[in-house]
Amino acid sequence: MATKAQVLYDFTAEPGNNELSVREGETITITNQSIGGGWIEAQNSRGEVGLVPEDYVEVGKSPAFAAGGSVPPIDLSFFDSHATASNTQGQVDVAQPETSLTPVTPITPVLPALTSPDETSNGNDPWAVFDTNASGGFSNNWAAQPEGTETGQGGNNAWGSGGHGHPHAYPGPGAEDDEWDDEWDERKSGGFGENETSEGGAINRGGAHGSSMKITLNKFPGFSKSGPELYLLSKLASKGPKLSIYSGEVGPVWEYTEPQLDCVVADPKKGSKMYGLKSYIEYQVMPNTTNKPVNHRYKHFDWLYERLLEKFGSAIPIPSLPDKQVTGRFEEEFIKMRMERLQAWMSRMCRHPIISNSEVFQLFLTYKDEKDWKTGKRKAEKDETVGVMIFSTIEPEGLPDLDLLEVEQKCEQFSRFTKSMDDGVKDLLTVGNEHWKRCTGPLPKEYQRIGKAFQNLSSVFTSSGYEGEATLTDALTAAGKTYEEIAQMVAEQPKKDLHFLMETNNEYKGLLGCFPDTIGVHKAAIEKVREADKLVATSKITAGEKVTMAKRASTMSYALQAEMNHFHSNRIYDYNRVMQQYLEQQVKFYEMIAEKLRHAHSQFTTM
Amino acid sequence: MATKAQVLYDFTAEPGNNELSVREGETITITNQSIGGGWIEAQNSRGEVGLVPEDYVEVGKSPAFAAGGSVPPIDLSFFDSHATASNTQGQVDVAQPETSLTPVTPITPVLPALTSPDETSNGNDPWAVFDTNASGGFSNNWAAQPEGTETGQGGNNAWGSGGHGHPHAYPGPGAEDDEWDDEWDERKSGGFGENETSEGGAINRGGAHGSSMKITLNKFPGFSKSGPELYLLSKLASKGPKLSIYSGEVGPVWEYTEPQLDCVVADPKKGSKMYGLKSYIEYQVMPNTTNKPVNHRYKHFDWLYERLLEKFGSAIPIPSLPDKQVTGRFEEEFIKMRMERLQAWMSRMCRHPIISNSEVFQLFLTYKDEKDWKTGKRKAEKDETVGVMIFSTIEPEGLPDLDLLEVEQKCEQFSRFTKSMDDGVKDLLTVGNEHWKRCTGPLPKEYQRIGKAFQNLSSVFTSSGYEGEATLTDALTAAGKTYEEIAQMVAEQPKKDLHFLMETNNEYKGLLGCFPDTIGVHKAAIEKVREADKLVATSKITAGEKVTMAKRASTMSYALQAEMNHFHSNRIYDYNRVMQQYLEQQVKFYEMIAEKLRHAHSQFTTM
Repeated sequence: MATKAQVLYDFTAEPGNNELSVREGETITITNQSIGGGWIEAQNSRGEVGLVPEDYVEVGKSPAFAAGGSVPPIDLSFFDSHATASNTQGQVDVAQPETSLTPVTPITPVLPALTSPDETSNGNDPWAVFDTNASGGFSNNWAAQPEGTETGQGGNNAWGSGGHGHPHAYPGPGAEDDEWDDEWDERKSGGFGENETSEGGAINRGGAHGSSMKITLNKFPGFSKSGPELYLLSKLASKGPKLSIYSGEVGPVWEYTEPQLDCVVADPKKGSKMYGLKSYIEYQVMPNTTNKPVNHRYKHFDWLYERLLEKFGSAIPIPSLPDKQVTGRFEEEFIKMRMERLQAWMSRMCRHPIISNSEVFQLFLTYKDEKDWKTGKRKAEKDETVGVMIFSTIEPEGLPDLDLLEVEQKCEQFSRFTKSMDDGVKDLLTVGNEHWKRCTGPLPKEYQRIGKAFQNLSSVFTSSGYEGEATLTDALTAAGKTYEEIAQMVAEQPKKDLHFLMETNNEYKGLLGCFPDTIGVHKAAIEKVREADKLVATSKITAGEKVTMAKRASTMSYALQAEMNHFHSNRIYDYNRVMQQYLEQQVKFYEMIAEKLRHAHSQFTTM
Repeated sequence: MATKAQVLYDFTAEPGNNELSVREGETITITNQSIGGGWIEAQNSRGEVGLVPEDYVEVGKSPAFAAGGSVPPIDLSFFDSHATASNTQGQVDVAQPETSLTPVTPITPVLPALTSPDETSNGNDPWAVFDTNASGGFSNNWAAQPEGTETGQGGNNAWGSGGHGHPHAYPGPGAEDDEWDDEWDERKSGGFGENETSEGGAINRGGAHGSSMKITLNKFPGFSKSGPELYLLSKLASKGPKLSIYSGEVGPVWEYTEPQLDCVVADPKKGSKMYGLKSYIEYQVMPNTTNKPVNHRYKHFDWLYERLLEKFGSAIPIPSLPDKQVTGRFEEEFIKMRMERLQAWMSRMCRHPIISNSEVFQLFLTYKDEKDWKTGKRKAEKDETVGVMIFSTIEPEGLPDLDLLEVEQKCEQFSRFTKSMDDGVKDLLTVGNEHWKRCTGPLPKEYQRIGKAFQNLSSVFTSSGYEGEATLTDALTAAGKTYEEIAQMVAEQPKKDLHFLMETNNEYKGLLGCFPDTIGVHKAAIEKVREADKLVATSKITAGEKVTMAKRASTMSYALQAEMNHFHSNRIYDYNRVMQQYLEQQVKFYEMIAEKLRHAHSQFTTM
């Protein structure tokens, strides 16, 4: 069966890999869809045949591509007409961009997982579009600032060149602006030996429920047809386990269970598939609950991330995974760094009471065998309690309903705080990155030169022919060598202290980058509730529906407060810990220098 | 009496000081020579009248300007003819430049003390001319390298702008390239209330013995008519006290007397003269022998330097005084720095057994009253045992005569060593200067920014509204302030340690810069002795004179060896001391940082 397909992105064949270079817009003929591993075989107009990434081509629009089919059937079209009306009334506080108010159109098919290099270049910044149109609370500046630009420039050198030794700049996330992960090559495959073509065909995936839903939620939460009104006016009974919120000492809090889940990510092993054509790294993940290790590749972490984002992203900021990477991704240092960051990401997820107790997260950590994994995976992908519908499972226990003003004030407060903290964290990262560069670049060079100058002078003195010279020249040589040792210490110190400070702040930068998402959903909901009176007046909704909307906005606010309290508690813990660690290492560093110099000093004659 | 005078250098009047601007080449009329303080009153062609520095004008050549009148009458003209002969014989090892072999011509009148700004710009580099023509042993590179170029560029900022606070570059000697000391305004005056016009007239000074002799010795030792042959073939009995050389443990040594002379330079006071028109700084100098302080201005130190250079310069390297300085010379920090350097210079002179026991040095330290000073000063200026004639007073006690080969080998050895050490010292100064810049510039700025970033984050955290935040924010603020304190410490540290390392090396750079002088005299003498055989063969000198020459070259070599041993002994002492001091301060510095960080660390909650 020869199917025609349209090329979506340029693809340059890697020599010796049986690949076929294709250009955006080119029409190719699919000659074999059963290659697997994310590849198809295709022929171009010149008759050349080779492998092409399946996600780089599009087999034409089909009815199956239209998304939203499984969205609960609520008629939300009145929002459109209302928005138009309110605009003519000059209500400037209506923040919804007009793009979200146009009539339902078939959603342009978006490749489920693979986004173009441009889109992935800024890490995970799903709010660039949203924030540009958002009502107050977020400056465009914050939202528009691409992730990683502050710490990224040097990182490219460090990783991009695959260099070992001391990276002169801190290899922060967002460092690999131009890179994309070729783990995409397996993204649609189930992994673990299941038939890799079963889910992977390009012509099938558009119809899959989860895929288009997820993208919709990711890219335009709050303004898509699955925006907060989906929950606010939902008539469906909530599905899934209840997520309780209690009144704690610091305010509304999630339900925390003991013992706290944790896991260890370790033992990265290289594997290969497609007869060695494609290789990958598999990590061992061992939860403290079972003490039984499970194996996961980066793409499985990525799958988990996508599920968590889809399911909890409206209520809980889900930080991105460590950046994807092509060049040198099997180099030892890169693997170590990725593992360290996957560990940090998993630990953070484990610490979250809602995430750690979720079925999908438990599946990831404790699946028994490949069948178990496969079944759980499919179930998770079919979960309908996703996006804003997660709020339908949240139950504030014994907490009074909040009025809209309170809801709004809390929302604004969190918005301001996260914005300020984002600025503060980025500032610290910028300073830290410069300090990293100095400590690994010019500073040790200078100490080295001081050391050489002393040793050089010592050599000259040795040549004097004068008696009784040895004590001085030995001491001077020793002092010179001491400064060379100090140079070495200075160059290696950032890895021992600044590294963790940077990692923690990078994690927080990523986490804070998700807040515009989460808070945006709340802001959109507040807008909707604010419009409720008018909607009742114009009989667009009933008085009962208005009450429901307000109550649900209150529930959303409790969720946000619980999440903020969770964030604060973690933040205090994390910064206490990292500052202690940093200062402890700094103390050791300076003490060791002093000790070395004390020894060097003792070798000079006392006179 | 209206005398016409030619203007030698441009002079720009300072407003409000009754001065007259004049241009080089302009003819002016002297209207009053009795102004004193180095000034004359003059009228220009436009009829304007004002003060002009007397050394900026020349009253025309007179027979009194021709120097060399008091040089012992030895006919040395045979050296000229010989040199020509040897050249035709293809003897390439004859190093004397032809310029020194031309018949005696009247020496162009040189202003005795004031040299043009160009000439003073490189500190004291009297060998630029000599070395260019010198036979092997000194690379032109070394000699041609202007003093101060390596450490100078930054120093201009530090002192030239008169800025306080932390100089970003080390203010080494030679830093003030374009500056000249307006202490010249009193250079020819006797000081201490003696009639300032008595010695100061421009028309008188050319005839003074000491002045032209000194310049001759300074500028062209070894190649002028007062070169080593003056001593090697001298028939005059030596004048002045004997300078003995003994055989010590390390080889030939000067006679050291106990207790070692030392003095304290302290208590700088501002004085003024000419009704406040000109002001100066007077330092108190107190020797440990009398414990009676005497007062001296910079120009007196300079006078002493000139005397010592004139008298001992052929045998003993006399380091230059700290640089002259106009801009901001009354600023506190400059005065402190100059005093410190005058102290170092005086201490070094005190430590030298020959210099410290010399009449002129004793006069400087222990004159009883102004009359005593004035009498001694005149006597010193009339001293005829100067230049190479100092060797006539040196007596190796019980030391066997050295043959020319030994003499030459020693000379070459010292030449190599001082050259190498000069390189080593300059290298250390370059490195030190860069380190100084970093420590007072970008490094503390970076620590400050780290401190600010921590404090900034602390402020953000404080705004969270979350309970139990205070412990973290207090600790974070304290950590931030600690890094600001560290920034301050880093910026101030070079003054506490690097400063002395730089000062000592600058001193040695100056001292080493004198060795080409001293060694050059010896090399020239060796050349003369080497020619002796031929001179005897051609009956230019007698066999007896040849023996005398060889014996005197041996005496010169002992003097050089004694001086080198003195140098080595001092060098070992100085570098031991300065390295100890440097490392001790460095240890304290790093210990204090560690202590501060330890305290900052303790404020974070232990978890």
